[in-house]
Amino acid sequence: MTNLDSAFQTLADPTRRAILARLIQGEATVDEIRKPFAISQPSISRHLKVLEKAELITTRIEGTSRPRRIEPAAFAATDGWLKQYHAIWKANYARLDDVLDQLRQEEDTP
Amino acid sequence: MTNLDSAFQTLADPTRRAILARLIQGEATVDEIRKPFAISQPSISRHLKVLEKAELITTRIEGTSRPRRIEPAAFAATDGWLKQYHAIWKANYARLDDVLDQLRQEEDTP
Repeated sequence: MTNLDSAFQTLADPTRRAILARLIQGEATVDEIRKPFAISQPSISRHLKVLEKAELITTRIEGTSRPRRIEPAAFAATDGWLKQYHAIWKANYARLDDVLDQLRQEEDTP
Repeated sequence: MTNLDSAFQTLADPTRRAILARLIQGEATVDEIRKPFAISQPSISRHLKVLEKAELITTRIEGTSRPRRIEPAAFAATDGWLKQYHAIWKANYARLDDVLDQLRQEEDTP
């Protein structure tokens, strides 16, 4: 499984996306992350493990506390893939514009 | 499963991403799509079914031919989600800049 596979796979879960949305506001402990969710701590911990394995988050050790934070570099892969898609898409539109311009010119010169 | 769930889930497979990369160049039949891959037609058909169920592609009926094409609207969901992430990320950086500016000003006025 490549980074891109595991990143997209990990983002396919709404709880994990919600955890990321929470962590984007700053690092947080498991208890802080868990608060807005109506799910158990083992369940949150499982999601955090998946997020960490996909390298979308990292754990910092601070005494007995283990705050989690977003790993921005991890989003480079998914973002890069979607950007490449946009570049090709824009190029297609530009080509369409050229064709339309040509059709207009042909109409003007019967 | 929401659109966002199934879109990310579908993008987590390298063959499906490669099929999308092919279709971005224009619509293609199953045989045309299959050519660059060393996999069977039933396997390609299964991937196409997943892509269609996630509404990332659509099928056009043309006589006995069934060309597939990209459904650009489907990418709006994944793109919107990642964009939201970027907006928050940029806001975080702007806030950091403000803090740094303030620290600099405090240093200048002892």
